[in-house]
Amino acid sequence: MTLDEDLEEGAGAQAVPGEVHPAVRRARAWLSRVCEPGTVDFWRYVDDVGPLEAVRTMRSGSAPERLRAVVGARAAQDESLADLLRAERCGARLVVPEDPEWPALPLHALTVAVADEPMDPERQSDRTLAPVPPVALWVRGPARLDELVERSVAIVGSRASTAYGEHVAGELGHQLGERGWTVVSGGAFGIDAAAHRGALAAEAPTVAVLACGVDRPYPASHGALFTRIAETGLLVSEWPPGCAPLRHRFLVRNRLIAALTRGTVVVEAAARSGAQATAKRARRLGREVLVVPGPVTSAMSVGCHELLRDREEGATLVASAAHVIEAVGGIGTDLAAPPERPGGARDGLSDLAARVLDACPVRIGVGPERLATIAGCDVLDVLRVLPALELADLVQWTGTGWRLTPPPKRGRDPGAAA
Amino acid sequence: MTLDEDLEEGAGAQAVPGEVHPAVRRARAWLSRVCEPGTVDFWRYVDDVGPLEAVRTMRSGSAPERLRAVVGARAAQDESLADLLRAERCGARLVVPEDPEWPALPLHALTVAVADEPMDPERQSDRTLAPVPPVALWVRGPARLDELVERSVAIVGSRASTAYGEHVAGELGHQLGERGWTVVSGGAFGIDAAAHRGALAAEAPTVAVLACGVDRPYPASHGALFTRIAETGLLVSEWPPGCAPLRHRFLVRNRLIAALTRGTVVVEAAARSGAQATAKRARRLGREVLVVPGPVTSAMSVGCHELLRDREEGATLVASAAHVIEAVGGIGTDLAAPPERPGGARDGLSDLAARVLDACPVRIGVGPERLATIAGCDVLDVLRVLPALELADLVQWTGTGWRLTPPPKRGRDPGAAA
Repeated sequence: MTLDEDLEEGAGAQAVPGEVHPAVRRARAWLSRVCEPGTVDFWRYVDDVGPLEAVRTMRSGSAPERLRAVVGARAAQDESLADLLRAERCGARLVVPEDPEWPALPLHALTVAVADEPMDPERQSDRTLAPVPPVALWVRGPARLDELVERSVAIVGSRASTAYGEHVAGELGHQLGERGWTVVSGGAFGIDAAAHRGALAAEAPTVAVLACGVDRPYPASHGALFTRIAETGLLVSEWPPGCAPLRHRFLVRNRLIAALTRGTVVVEAAARSGAQATAKRARRLGREVLVVPGPVTSAMSVGCHELLRDREEGATLVASAAHVIEAVGGIGTDLAAPPERPGGARDGLSDLAARVLDACPVRIGVGPERLATIAGCDVLDVLRVLPALELADLVQWTGTGWRLTPPPKRGRDPGAAA
Repeated sequence: MTLDEDLEEGAGAQAVPGEVHPAVRRARAWLSRVCEPGTVDFWRYVDDVGPLEAVRTMRSGSAPERLRAVVGARAAQDESLADLLRAERCGARLVVPEDPEWPALPLHALTVAVADEPMDPERQSDRTLAPVPPVALWVRGPARLDELVERSVAIVGSRASTAYGEHVAGELGHQLGERGWTVVSGGAFGIDAAAHRGALAAEAPTVAVLACGVDRPYPASHGALFTRIAETGLLVSEWPPGCAPLRHRFLVRNRLIAALTRGTVVVEAAARSGAQATAKRARRLGREVLVVPGPVTSAMSVGCHELLRDREEGATLVASAAHVIEAVGGIGTDLAAPPERPGGARDGLSDLAARVLDACPVRIGVGPERLATIAGCDVLDVLRVLPALELADLVQWTGTGWRLTPPPKRGRDPGAAA
């Protein structure tokens, strides 16, 4: 079926609640290739008339002149079906705003920001920096996008990182993953890769937001890393499969990393670097900017220290995963037992027992020594309170270590390929 | 002559402007031993009735009951003459508030703070932490105390420092000394010693504020360091020669380090450490608190990061001497040519020439490569602008490097032993 026939059928179809008509998905697939990076006006028009009507008018030439100029010769082309098939072949799917899986809440920050853009295109933000929401997201992996980013933190930093930076990024990624937070990063060399790997080592799903197609490993040597990420977490991109990692796409992509997460942790950044710019964009989207300091003798920490010295940026120094969690969610509220569980058991805990409980990871069990380190107490104290916590069904022994007793299944559906 | 005869003579003597009667100095020598640490009431009484009358009434038993209780049995003793002679023998002198050399301006912060203390002794600050101004200062070294601390910065930190911390403290001490700032510290192991040594390496005078007599090296292995400090800078103490470094004296001493300087730089500090406490006291005296970050993996930087995370403390992250100077004085105002020099020469400078000029040290000449590093430009640019700066008599060649042309002598009198 041609795109135009598909659109016509979609426009005439009855809306089925909870189901997205294939024509809508195809229209958004077409939009994701035809105009990128999306402009403020482009997004507003799609939002205004809907994807089916937007595509129809752009193809027929009846869309407003300004938009036709942006789309240009691409209006006549159509790779939407090929893109959707190519995605299916690599185990990816197109998530659209009409899907229940769409991360509407995190992306709301972009919707708010784009509303603040002036009407006059001359006065709007630079196209690569404009806070335009994505028209759709190509995702590859078994997890549900909205659930995965619900409690997520971005870890970003220099590609030319030092051993110190990689160690800290890996440790943060691991500890955040261990505590049930999703680590989002860009899949690049250096800090990004260390953060992803740290999360994977904690058997936590992690999200790489790419500046190219989700079927195209970039950097190429990260092919195995991307495969591992796609096994439990997600690869996410605004660009259809096959798209190349063009220079401007990294800048455009960075706003997504900031928007999808509750806060951005900058681990290492050289003076006037991209990581700094990402942090400032996160700040403008109302996100926490968290910065890991380093030796003042390291060029790779200069950008971090610049961020921390700039009081107007309001960046917070973080030295541990606990600091990050304190900033983005609060240990008390976020790791408290879910409401389904009787509250009484936790309420009666001693201060020490509560700290040990808070120290327990959600997935992989850990030994009493590690619990003692995290809780800041003696290992004998840990051994003393664990039996009571186990009796209260708050923690469980996994065979190799202690972890929080998982809450009753909420149905984290592994998701199907499109 | 006995103390009491001396007091009587002093009380009857005509005041000679600019000259301190020996009886006043002797009275304050007596006060510096008889009540330490000084209490709020003690200081108020001396300030109120004057040192001669204060000593007379304390010895005769006619001082208010509360003070007599504080002084106790010491009222009958008198080592004032012996202390002054002992000081003279080690090249030290007693500087009193009546001296022109008294650092009245920096110590004003303590006078203001002590005025805020409640009248009720029960509600006053803990005696070791009370912001009581010193009744006199024993100083050893050729420099004038008031001139030396006029543009000074404290560098403090852990005794159990790491190689990183010592490197940074030494480099800060060196660069601040090079730029005409006096480094004040406590003469202790670790960060203190590294900061003093850095300043000495720049041939800059440095001030060690001790918790024991100025003739008594503590730690003992720093004897050679103290001798070097006393050759060009100053050893300062509230306690008479021979006094031991009792534990509480370090806490009492710390308020002096904070008060005498424009800001306190914390280089390394463990969690909940003394350096943190010093920083907080500096803050309460209205001084800048400047903190050097470090690797988050280092226990010796945990206290630094705690200070930087505590927004209410208002600490500023510093990564270089330039950051320190920016916070405590501002490069523009502080390293500008003194007013005696015709302003025209500097005003006409290009931006580049002005930066190179600002990069020139005040004492030891440095090579063009270092100037280029500090000014943030190419070494060829430095070589291009130096001839013009030399012609304008703004910089001079010392035989080994370039430095600022010293201003016409203001008469920094090397000072005589008491």
